Order: sequence, then C-alpha cells, then structure tokens
Amino acid sequence: MNKQYPSILLDNALNELAALPGIGRKTALRLALYILRRDADYTKRLSSSLLALRQNIRYCIECHNICDTDRCAICANQSRDHSTVCVVENIKEVMAIENTLQFRGVYHVLGGVISPVEGIGPADLEIDSLIERVASGEVKEIILALRTTMEGETTNFFLFRKLESYNIVISVIARGISIGDEIEYADEITLGRSIINRISFNDSIKMGENNDQC
Amino acid sequence: MNKQYPSILLDNALNELAALPGIGRKTALRLALYILRRDADYTKRLSSSLLALRQNIRYCIECHNICDTDRCAICANQSRDHSTVCVVENIKEVMAIENTLQFRGVYHVLGGVISPVEGIGPADLEIDSLIERVASGEVKEIILALRTTMEGETTNFFLFRKLESYNIVISVIARGISIGDEIEYADEITLGRSIINRISFNDSIKMGENNDQC
Repeated sequence: MNKQYPSILLDNALNELAALPGIGRKTALRLALYILRRDADYTKRLSSSLLALRQNIRYCIECHNICDTDRCAICANQSRDHSTVCVVENIKEVMAIENTLQFRGVYHVLGGVISPVEGIGPADLEIDSLIERVASGEVKEIILALRTTMEGETTNFFLFRKLESYNIVISVIARGISIGDEIEYADEITLGRSIINRISFNDSIKMGENNDQC
Repeated sequence: MNKQYPSILLDNALNELAALPGIGRKTALRLALYILRRDADYTKRLSSSLLALRQNIRYCIECHNICDTDRCAICANQSRDHSTVCVVENIKEVMAIENTLQFRGVYHVLGGVISPVEGIGPADLEIDSLIERVASGEVKEIILALRTTMEGETTNFFLFRKLESYNIVISVIARGISIGDEIEYADEITLGRSIINRISFNDSIKMGENNDQC
C-alpha cells in the first residue's frame, strides 16, 4: 500500500532509518515517533555518537578488531598467547568467544567471508595481513572459527590453501550437538559430524573437570 | 552475560541506539556494524535527517498531526468534510485510516491516551483544543478511534463526558470480527460485541456494493 507521509522531514528520516538492516518502514516510523517524543538532547546524542563512531573508529593494526587506539586490548595484553590465532568474521564473534572465557590466544578479524554472490573476494578481506602474521613466524596455530555456510567453508578452504605451506597447525572449531540439545531433533549433518569427530570419553571427562584454557 | 566492548566510541553509539524502542544491545550492534561498513555519507545523512526531524518538525495548528507547515494537507483540503472529526492517538492511525480511502472527514490527533501508569493525564494530550474545536460550532460528529485498552476506553469516556453537553453526534468505530477471520478463533469480547452491535443484512450488502465515503 502506498503510504503518503504528511511531512518531508519525516519522510527523509524514515528513508534513512529504513536503510538500516532489519528496519522496515513501520519500525522506522515507530523509531521516528519515539525520537519526536523524547527531548531534543537525545537526538543530538544519538546523531553525534553515530557520527563519532563512523568518523573516528579505528581498527587494531594486528587483528583488525574495532578499537579506539592503534592496538586493541586483546592484542596489547602480553599475558595472552600470541602464537594461537583464532580467525573470525567480525567483532561479534570475538565477543562471543571472549565471553566463553575458554580462549587465551589472540584473534584475526577477516571482516567477512568470501562471497561471490555479494561481490566479496579475498582482496576485500584481511587475508593478506593474516598470511603476513603467519609468515613472520610468531604463529603456531590458526583456529578457523567462521560460519558453517558455503561461503564460510569456501573461505576456510581458501585460507587452508594459502597457509598449508607454513609449519603451523591449522584447526577448525568443533561442530556437534549443542549441550542440552535433544539428539533426535539435531540435523543430520551436525549429528553425522558429531559421530565422525567423536572424542575419547576420558578426554571429555577431563574437559568438564578443569576449565583449561587454550 | 557482561559484554565488554573494545571501543568507547562503539559503546556510546550502542547505548544511544539501544535506547530506541524494540532495539536491544544485539540489534544495536548489528546496526552499528552496518553503519561502519557503509560509506560515511550515509551516517551523515542519517544523523542530519534525524536532527532536522527533531528540530524543525511542526504540528498542524488544527489537528496536531505532524507536518512541515502551519496546517497539514488534510486540514488544508477544503473538499474534505470539516464537520466530521475522527479522534486518533497519533499519525500512525491517521495514515492507517487514510489508506482505507473510506474517510473524507478530518482528524484530531490527541498525542496518546490517558494513562495514569505512564503519568499521562488529560493535560498532556490535545483535549482542550478538541473541545475548542467542538465549541466553535463547526463540528457535527466526533468519531472516537482510540485503541481498545483500559487506557483507550478511559480516554473515550473522558472525552464523552467533556463533549456530551454539545449538540453533536459522538460515535466510536465498530469493533467486530475482522474480514477473513475464523469465528471460532475470535476472542469472546470481540465476538460478543459483534453480536450485540450486529447490523441489518440489507445495510451490509449496500456497504459492499458502493464504497460510500463518510
């Protein structure tokens, strides 16, 4: 249905809001009405925080994670294991893994996965700098933690090809049945992988006993 | 889970975004990452359109609907019936009713409903100006089109009390089973009202035949 807004100012704001992912025209209108109801200071704070984010954000020169300085807090932390590098898509995965408290290595943020459909090639991602990190000799293990989609698997394979000539361990995070999940409802691929990649029961007991961090 | 963001700039933007209705920290992060991926011009356009909306928006001096000038397009339209006034909460309802193409009268935007819980009293709404419009003698009918909640019904009753002494028709939009809905799944209150407020079959045939606008 063709909706006519009674105000060009409102229409402009709705167009820009509706460009955001997951925000349709209806949600955009709800947000705009909220902005109109709240004090003008809020809109100023919102606008200036978004502008400041876009204009002043920096990326860690080592791992390319979002940060405010040259080097992110994780890379700057000398107590972390700089020889184990976990390769992730972006900051969301860094935060998810950090929250597990199970990883004491460092990260490498690719900025996405190879996706010919979306026009994202290897040159658009931080792949060269990953190879440089490995070539420098400091890295002993690369853990691939990309999404399990065609694009993620393609990227994994591309990285493996680029890195296999170096004397490092290349691993990939375990896929299997989530803890608490019913086995009967698991999809076949995940269940199949969990059987193929089964681990010794003894090891699994140890894992539950002590929360050793890698 | 306590999430630590690696950037104060990001954290500030997330705080402001997450203040918007329906936007949690996770959605806010997705929006922020989108803003970082897009060109800087987009963020400028988004910020300036929100600021312009908040700072320059005006409200129609007759119906209080959002507009860019003194009087909204509906109130300025002399071919509309200025003696029939539909009372709504805000612009969303104006747009919904306009989209039906069934109403040729004008509106009165209250700006909300009376809600003691949220601290919204009659003085916070455009009630006095509605009474002034009625007192001026131009209005023949008031159609109440507020939401069917305790707050909406309270507001309806409050308006009825304030307006009953004037020589006008006060009506309320029909509640009943939506067209296409299964009767067995309708809630009891709606179904009950649809039986109490039943209309002559003859009238309902006429309604289907010609789309007479009130």
